[in-house]
Amino acid sequence: MNQQLQTPKGFRDFLPRQARARQFVVTKVKEIFERFGFVPLETPTIEYASILMGKYGEEADKLVFQFKDRGDRELALRYDQTVPTARVLAQYQNELPKYFRRYQIQNVFRAEKPQKGRYREFTQCDIDIFGSTNPLADAEVIACTYFAYKNVGYPTVQIKINDRQILFATLELFATSDISVFSLIQSIDKLDKIGAQEVIDELVRKGVSTAQATAALETIGSAKPTENLQDIIKKSIQLGVPSDAIIFTSSLARGLDYYTGMIFEVIVPEYTTGSLGGGGRYDNLINQLGGVNIPAVGIAFGFDRMVEAAELLNLIPTTSASSILVTVFDEVTAQNALTTAKILRENNIATELYPNLDPLEKQLKYADKKGIPFVVIIGPEEANSNKVTLKNLKTKEQKKISVEKLCTLLA
Amino acid sequence: MNQQLQTPKGFRDFLPRQARARQFVVTKVKEIFERFGFVPLETPTIEYASILMGKYGEEADKLVFQFKDRGDRELALRYDQTVPTARVLAQYQNELPKYFRRYQIQNVFRAEKPQKGRYREFTQCDIDIFGSTNPLADAEVIACTYFAYKNVGYPTVQIKINDRQILFATLELFATSDISVFSLIQSIDKLDKIGAQEVIDELVRKGVSTAQATAALETIGSAKPTENLQDIIKKSIQLGVPSDAIIFTSSLARGLDYYTGMIFEVIVPEYTTGSLGGGGRYDNLINQLGGVNIPAVGIAFGFDRMVEAAELLNLIPTTSASSILVTVFDEVTAQNALTTAKILRENNIATELYPNLDPLEKQLKYADKKGIPFVVIIGPEEANSNKVTLKNLKTKEQKKISVEKLCTLLA
Repeated sequence: MNQQLQTPKGFRDFLPRQARARQFVVTKVKEIFERFGFVPLETPTIEYASILMGKYGEEADKLVFQFKDRGDRELALRYDQTVPTARVLAQYQNELPKYFRRYQIQNVFRAEKPQKGRYREFTQCDIDIFGSTNPLADAEVIACTYFAYKNVGYPTVQIKINDRQILFATLELFATSDISVFSLIQSIDKLDKIGAQEVIDELVRKGVSTAQATAALETIGSAKPTENLQDIIKKSIQLGVPSDAIIFTSSLARGLDYYTGMIFEVIVPEYTTGSLGGGGRYDNLINQLGGVNIPAVGIAFGFDRMVEAAELLNLIPTTSASSILVTVFDEVTAQNALTTAKILRENNIATELYPNLDPLEKQLKYADKKGIPFVVIIGPEEANSNKVTLKNLKTKEQKKISVEKLCTLLA
Repeated sequence: MNQQLQTPKGFRDFLPRQARARQFVVTKVKEIFERFGFVPLETPTIEYASILMGKYGEEADKLVFQFKDRGDRELALRYDQTVPTARVLAQYQNELPKYFRRYQIQNVFRAEKPQKGRYREFTQCDIDIFGSTNPLADAEVIACTYFAYKNVGYPTVQIKINDRQILFATLELFATSDISVFSLIQSIDKLDKIGAQEVIDELVRKGVSTAQATAALETIGSAKPTENLQDIIKKSIQLGVPSDAIIFTSSLARGLDYYTGMIFEVIVPEYTTGSLGGGGRYDNLINQLGGVNIPAVGIAFGFDRMVEAAELLNLIPTTSASSILVTVFDEVTAQNALTTAKILRENNIATELYPNLDPLEKQLKYADKKGIPFVVIIGPEEANSNKVTLKNLKTKEQKKISVEKLCTLLA
């Protein structure tokens, strides 16, 4: 294929239909973020490499896009939003409020091996509250999360929730100098996917005895929520999350090693590919990354999956961008067409003016192909009678009406 | 300075106040773009270097950020939105509508020498109509431009307009094999900034005789709009642009060499740093860049300047993100606070719940510092009487009211 005519593998164009679907999801979640008092933050796409390197672990570090500028500075592309935010929290600590709730929706870059379904540029969407260890902050994040997903329109939004302390307390008994608690947590995390027997097998392979592994699973399976978690759940419900939307799941482990307390995942049962986002409390990470001791709780929305799920579940409005196409009959009547377009737009109606003097037939086909539902025709007769012909392209009905009436009809 | 705690020179963080100002401008212009039937397009941040290189001229090519990925592919960061759009037009020519009106708001990267006021990452905001050479398309772009700027709130929006054909016709007489028409146009372009005498001096230095240079300036100065331009202006007015907002300026030349017809610049007289955007018709460029013969007309909004001008002219709402802070008095009354926050948010009121159990004094100070205008206090007395105390932090007034009344007050 001609390299001129493609994006590099793992990178995507979003043509208008897709770009509008993405904007729909962004608009819906932002509306809720702002209603919960979250404010936007933007960091640059490019950071000093030294800010990012060594922060993601040995394997992930290799996936950071790095290069030198012409001044020989080592630069790197944004890999996630957490490390740059840690820099911001440290750099502007005297300017930012003590309790800082921010949302951030930006693209990140991963130098993955190009392969199907793996993107090298994708959108991350995070909300976090920095500065408070109080369960009030955890509950605010959970409530904001719940309402953000609901606002996109997913029919059922469930929040699986757990407390890392439950896992720590149970698994610490089985950890050794060879097997870290986190290695055990990673195995437990697979319970939903591979089942109890395979988790036990994996734990045994890691050096835990079969009896210990079985005991660990049983202890976790029968665990009750911690007091901390009960408090968070209670407060989330007081903030409006339906109680049956919060599902205590003692085996929920989450992949990332930095969570210190409450962890959660968002499930839309009607979408079976996987969770649509997840997060939790991470009270030590910002200190590790940015050198300022700031507790944090937040969630990363799985943006690509959210768009996919919204499309699959038909939540994205399929209406065309324009409500109406104003056709242009000829040079003489053009003035009436343009004035009609002006008035429609003054009435907040998304209006496309056909930008050429093609035969009317062609203009109608254009509207039909674009899915524009209505067309306005203004020929000499309409121009003389100060009316327009409105044609509904679906029903093929057409009628002569005044522009005023047209605006009322479409508003 | 500790490299850990800064962005590379030429790159910026946008803290919430600035990020909100930027979002304000984006929201206002997008609203109009969509009302004019423009649809969004997104291209990836990274392209094959071969797509970009050789497209911007020798000097500019050096400013493209280039690097190799681990598979030794030559990649480059988005330098503008026109070249990637030319690729899109060529690559998806069978999918896109014949007349394609799209808007695109994305960041671009320039490997400029770091210096004050020169950004290496900044936002470009473009609208274009592809596929039509008809003045209807020019007029649609001008009308959309006018209303987009007005929607941001600039008090006066003026559109200086010209037709490159006027300049071509006049200056072709003076061009030689040594002095291109475009070189002459670039000198004329400075008329506003440096005055007639200096332009004449510059033309003379380029090899034009003093008599010729003077004659050229006179011819241009007394030029009348072409028929094409008159038609565009007439149609723009029919689309709602006030006639006194369109100013025919026969010396307007614009810097870029690819314009072929109508050219224009947007001026807000109250903002004197310079034009806030500009564009025109460029019927050959897409063919040169993408190999498909598609005429085009569009404008690049000067996004950074628009935000700056909007701030200087106090157009950005300075209200805090949250309308109200719900304080948390103690563990017992917390339930009432949370329920109040829930109800406020159900009524679309941006509400922040104080995320910790600090002394009330401290919570009030926090709200004041953040500029949140109202605070709700719910102590034992309020909880018992099923009311809340609403405090106006500016007037220091406070009163006990029901939550229902509170919602009506703030809605």
